[in-house]
Amino acid sequence: MANITKKVSWTSRGDDAGGGEGTPLLNGSEEVRYTRQLSGVGGMFHIGRLSTVDLEEDVTSDEEARPTKSQRYGSVSTYPGSLQDSPKGRPEEIPHNEKLLSLKFESLDYDSSENQLFLEEERRMSYLGFRCLEISRWVICGLIGFLTGLIACCIDIAVEKLAGVKYFVVKQNIEKFTEVGGLSISLILWAVLNSSLVMVGAITVAFIEPIAAGSGIPQIKCYLNGVKIPRVVRLKTLVVKVFGVICSVAGGLAVGKEGPMIHSGAVVAAGVSQGRSTSLKKDFKIFEYFRRDTEKRDFVSAGAAAGVSAAFGAPVGGVLFSLEEGASFWNQMLTWRIFFASMISTFTLNFFLSIYNNKPGDLSSPGLINFGRFERAVSLPVFQGMLYVHRPCLQVMEAMLVAAVTATVSFSMIYFSNDCQPLGPDQSEDYQLQLFCADGEYNSMATTFFNTPERSVRSLFHNPPGSYNPGTLGMFTVTYFFLACWTYGLAVSAGVFIPSLLIGAAWGRLFGILLPTVTASGSIWADPGKYALIGAAAQLGGIVRMTLSLTVIMVEATGNVTYGLPIMLVLMTAKIVGDYFVEGLYDIHIKLQSVPFLHWEAPATSHWLTAREVMGAPVICFNRLEKVGTIVDILSNTSTNHNGFPVVVPVAASDEPGKICGLILRSQLIVLLKHKVFVELARSRLTQRKLQLKDFRDAYPRFPPIQSIHVSQDERDCMMDLSEFMNPTPYTVPQETSLPRVFKLFRALGLRHLVVVDHDNRVVGLVTRKDLARYHLGKHGLEELQLAQT
Amino acid sequence: MANITKKVSWTSRGDDAGGGEGTPLLNGSEEVRYTRQLSGVGGMFHIGRLSTVDLEEDVTSDEEARPTKSQRYGSVSTYPGSLQDSPKGRPEEIPHNEKLLSLKFESLDYDSSENQLFLEEERRMSYLGFRCLEISRWVICGLIGFLTGLIACCIDIAVEKLAGVKYFVVKQNIEKFTEVGGLSISLILWAVLNSSLVMVGAITVAFIEPIAAGSGIPQIKCYLNGVKIPRVVRLKTLVVKVFGVICSVAGGLAVGKEGPMIHSGAVVAAGVSQGRSTSLKKDFKIFEYFRRDTEKRDFVSAGAAAGVSAAFGAPVGGVLFSLEEGASFWNQMLTWRIFFASMISTFTLNFFLSIYNNKPGDLSSPGLINFGRFERAVSLPVFQGMLYVHRPCLQVMEAMLVAAVTATVSFSMIYFSNDCQPLGPDQSEDYQLQLFCADGEYNSMATTFFNTPERSVRSLFHNPPGSYNPGTLGMFTVTYFFLACWTYGLAVSAGVFIPSLLIGAAWGRLFGILLPTVTASGSIWADPGKYALIGAAAQLGGIVRMTLSLTVIMVEATGNVTYGLPIMLVLMTAKIVGDYFVEGLYDIHIKLQSVPFLHWEAPATSHWLTAREVMGAPVICFNRLEKVGTIVDILSNTSTNHNGFPVVVPVAASDEPGKICGLILRSQLIVLLKHKVFVELARSRLTQRKLQLKDFRDAYPRFPPIQSIHVSQDERDCMMDLSEFMNPTPYTVPQETSLPRVFKLFRALGLRHLVVVDHDNRVVGLVTRKDLARYHLGKHGLEELQLAQT
Repeated sequence: MANITKKVSWTSRGDDAGGGEGTPLLNGSEEVRYTRQLSGVGGMFHIGRLSTVDLEEDVTSDEEARPTKSQRYGSVSTYPGSLQDSPKGRPEEIPHNEKLLSLKFESLDYDSSENQLFLEEERRMSYLGFRCLEISRWVICGLIGFLTGLIACCIDIAVEKLAGVKYFVVKQNIEKFTEVGGLSISLILWAVLNSSLVMVGAITVAFIEPIAAGSGIPQIKCYLNGVKIPRVVRLKTLVVKVFGVICSVAGGLAVGKEGPMIHSGAVVAAGVSQGRSTSLKKDFKIFEYFRRDTEKRDFVSAGAAAGVSAAFGAPVGGVLFSLEEGASFWNQMLTWRIFFASMISTFTLNFFLSIYNNKPGDLSSPGLINFGRFERAVSLPVFQGMLYVHRPCLQVMEAMLVAAVTATVSFSMIYFSNDCQPLGPDQSEDYQLQLFCADGEYNSMATTFFNTPERSVRSLFHNPPGSYNPGTLGMFTVTYFFLACWTYGLAVSAGVFIPSLLIGAAWGRLFGILLPTVTASGSIWADPGKYALIGAAAQLGGIVRMTLSLTVIMVEATGNVTYGLPIMLVLMTAKIVGDYFVEGLYDIHIKLQSVPFLHWEAPATSHWLTAREVMGAPVICFNRLEKVGTIVDILSNTSTNHNGFPVVVPVAASDEPGKICGLILRSQLIVLLKHKVFVELARSRLTQRKLQLKDFRDAYPRFPPIQSIHVSQDERDCMMDLSEFMNPTPYTVPQETSLPRVFKLFRALGLRHLVVVDHDNRVVGLVTRKDLARYHLGKHGLEELQLAQT
Repeated sequence: MANITKKVSWTSRGDDAGGGEGTPLLNGSEEVRYTRQLSGVGGMFHIGRLSTVDLEEDVTSDEEARPTKSQRYGSVSTYPGSLQDSPKGRPEEIPHNEKLLSLKFESLDYDSSENQLFLEEERRMSYLGFRCLEISRWVICGLIGFLTGLIACCIDIAVEKLAGVKYFVVKQNIEKFTEVGGLSISLILWAVLNSSLVMVGAITVAFIEPIAAGSGIPQIKCYLNGVKIPRVVRLKTLVVKVFGVICSVAGGLAVGKEGPMIHSGAVVAAGVSQGRSTSLKKDFKIFEYFRRDTEKRDFVSAGAAAGVSAAFGAPVGGVLFSLEEGASFWNQMLTWRIFFASMISTFTLNFFLSIYNNKPGDLSSPGLINFGRFERAVSLPVFQGMLYVHRPCLQVMEAMLVAAVTATVSFSMIYFSNDCQPLGPDQSEDYQLQLFCADGEYNSMATTFFNTPERSVRSLFHNPPGSYNPGTLGMFTVTYFFLACWTYGLAVSAGVFIPSLLIGAAWGRLFGILLPTVTASGSIWADPGKYALIGAAAQLGGIVRMTLSLTVIMVEATGNVTYGLPIMLVLMTAKIVGDYFVEGLYDIHIKLQSVPFLHWEAPATSHWLTAREVMGAPVICFNRLEKVGTIVDILSNTSTNHNGFPVVVPVAASDEPGKICGLILRSQLIVLLKHKVFVELARSRLTQRKLQLKDFRDAYPRFPPIQSIHVSQDERDCMMDLSEFMNPTPYTVPQETSLPRVFKLFRALGLRHLVVVDHDNRVVGLVTRKDLARYHLGKHGLEELQLAQT
């Protein structure tokens, strides 16, 4: 029967059990039993059943500890055989598996720890102080918008320049050899140029900062959802990303430069809002108030919005993207700040691009809100196949191979195509190839293949009817689709929007050309460019599955509201049809990475579960006055790596769980240990500076690992008073609370730890992100993911 | 010193102390002390200090009960003299005062009561059942969109027809008398026609359903915020509103028909989603699952969005309006449903209007997404003056007077204007008046005054340069401004969008005409129509203070994305400048009504306050097993009218507060009493049907008053078992929790009651909406509003 009780398994942790920066810590997942041979009756409470479990073994004994669970699922529908049949032994190394939930990701804490220090600071602050903070927030958002726009501008210009030089050289070469023969030399030239550019980009990404690969959108989604992805908002990532995307787009891969913009905006925001750069070891001593997860997230939302805004010239779309993908609590003021950042970003980009194009001041012209910046590419089998090319060198070589293949395919398509079109009166195409066409004509295949994808999309939308013949478009669609799919798995900075749009535009236009021949009746929409737009929207919508924000982005990018309704209908249809088969690309990506991502609501049929069943227990708790040795030992235990500890008041009978009186975080304890805030020392050294909130902020977000803190044997016997530093009013729920209710509280408030108490307020368990994320609705009802230390 | 502890005062409750539907109940505000001469040691707990307080007296003794409070405010900045100096005696009847917080408004409960019945139902439901529910939600949203679009269509056509007939008659008359003299007869005809139409509308509103007056937007804002405004989503209100708005717009008042559309959409949603009409006494027995506040709110959001969408042809703007004004928890699925309703609504409107205009199928033409539907008018002194004309007859007469004055003023303006313009080649204006102009010319003042406001706005936007002379525009702006201000206070169904747009467009165009003469340099924007658009946006933005949603609405309504950036800038500026002086119109409206409206966040400087200070105490609690007599007595007490009661387990020492084990609502108790769910009866009548969730849903939302339930003396001695019906896991907070933290929990989860407990989980207080809404940030720091039974 119900196998939902299948329990935690770990793969071996390998040799990196250090717990340092490079080793992601466990996020307080209490499923991991921690057993300590505590000599004294110290102030540490093991609540519930204390069992000695070998961490290398499956915790099967746990099922006995929760006998009610399997009984309760009497009428929950069946569970998939695969889960039932899977052996109880620990799974082997499966790096990417959607049936697992990784334990390596930490959570972010979007609920401020309102401890005494914090409250004191807030109370000291005058009304004017809050006004200043509010103004700083606006200033920061303005800066974020400005810098993001500037970066977009740099990328745009760099890509244009590089691609321009490349196409110029190749075109010269082709023209030279068209007459005399020897076009294979041109092909080789093109392939080599592409490969070199891509190689530079791939090397940067693979060897310097692998997290900069791809579009970065799934990572930003996770960040906004509350999952800490290591190194995702670092300056180094930004530099590598920007450089990488210039190389890969200029290198002719089937990728766009828009997704990376979103990631870039987020990094800018995370950096600017903190007023310092840890990488550059530079602290400007400003914006110190914002050095915590809650505030930082708000700015990262603004950054992501500014990125979308710069990428597509769609400020409203940017705000909606941020909200649709990330935020859960809609705050009007925050929304306006995000909107402000988006506006500044578009404005900056427009301003500098207009200067670059020698048309300064021409901001309101529709040409600047062009259809120029997007990204993507899909198809799962290929995608999954790609995931196993892991070694950096292989990655670089694969990227080069793809670049060469892309050039070769493009070349052959152009070469064997005999679709000549007369040159229009306006030479709007920059890179028209005459090739074997008659004078005054150009090769129409070349307008799509011998061009940056952005320009190709625009050509498909706006070229007059008759510019393309159906065969060309069909060939192009199929070829480009496979190229894009292959490209998506590469370790280069790249987006999927533009390739999706390009593929969609191609088959949309094809459809538009073929339709009148089939229906025979006079078409209302004579212009196939409109079909291209609708096709592009459908393709992109089917891949990323956004509706509201994508509608606005498309409308803002086309600059024409009248297409709004058809675009909406098409996106809605794409979403419904797509969801029937498989999730959106970003969600698949997140699932494959086994990220503990919290969706909007708990699964529909999860009312069977209560906090008692989902919580982790027993919980390691501290006393208000705790021995330093105990704390150090618990923090050093690499097999548990808890991040949050309830602080309790012991009750009379010493073996019962204590009453909750607060919650303290690992990071706070680390700072306390580092500053040696011990009761005994405070007594002896009366002059010692009192620990302030500033000390915590300075350490944020890269708190040192416990191993770097040295505590002498004498100090181990000292006591620490946690009262002042713990959050005295953590949110709690009774153990009978249903899972959807727990989920709602957790998600709405962006919690990291939720303490489960009994009727006497005694701590009986702790709910963390993984405890909630592991339930999901499968095809056959509620399923539970396995936890794994991948 | 800190006078924040100023306490509750009541005006006399008058003669309507019945507690029925007509008498709004107190919403569990525990500030009102309830004293019962309880004879036995029944199961009712008065927690904390029990004091006998005369309700007609100011509860000054209360300050002693909370000695910590005034001490704690040592460093909160000063408070306004007015509050300090106000006499301690109870305030006299002050119907509208922004310093008061009314106790007459009940709250909605956006947190489902997860009692046993509910959980059982949820657990019984299969995965398929949830899918069906999800599909029903989509169907309902579709229906909402369709019906809202249909209503918009009816209003539009009716107004066009009526106004057409009216202007035709008046024009004929004017043309007849222009030559022969005697234009005063035309004036009288016009005034009489206007007055009659307005009279019909005003009578309907004033005598049948006064809540249908105005735009209804503040009421919908309150509803979405969680405040129950009586009769606001009834069918009767909808009918009166639609009829009233047709009359007032056709009657030539300075009003728009767009705000009422938003209200109408909300009413449609509330009706359709419940699958029945209480007014028509018709229950379709469908959608029973949605008969609770949580679900209903979601549909009302969709309805409001559909209303905006139909009014302005702005589906995305509609979604944003709903979210910006109402929602706090952003749920992706919900957003998509709202979006769907909006789309259907626009589509329906377009479809039927295109049929009406004999252009079926012409859906994607920009002409249908026209600038046709908006609303408003302001100026506080006049507005406040109007508030005191209360008696229905006076209201009707005032409305007629305004209609006549509007006609007279318009007529004089046209009469005395000598601004003749040549007729254009296309006779686009329907009601051009030649009057004293030469043949082939028309009176330009008449295009703005002798027209529906929508058409006037469009003329101001789109007429070619030179159509208006500056004097005309200046005169028009000033006159129309005062007319609109006067009109706003009337008891007619009317919106403020269109008048605002009209005024803004007029001075915008004026500015556009004057600018080139001042600067002398060649203007980039030669077209004053663009200035008109920007002026309209600025005026409207300054009045309603929306930014994101209004930007999108304006852009969608103009059908041109390129104006997006200037509109954004103008709206942002309008908001910043406006907020410096006074709040937005809707917020002022809400404040004047003393509605306990919860803003997005707690006031910045409120970290001084904790749950202990804001909560109501002592709390009336029940036992799990409670005597019927006790329950009836407590519910019947009209001086308290609590709506939520913690259920407790008594602790050993009987005078101590009990431990929380649940929360039960007045409405639930009423249903239990009505069905006589008594322990003794259940034993004797074993065959009795068990009470089901359906019984609660059937009674929703108009639960009978306690007075209508008859309990015999024998039955009073029976016991009721509340375990099955109470919510066993209410959210609780410790008493040390800071106000911002309490606020966040309350607002994010849409709570109605939040139980405050001590370290042993004993009930010490209850926080309700009014306890949180009464703190706000004034010019001099934190202020506390007085509670009043207005």
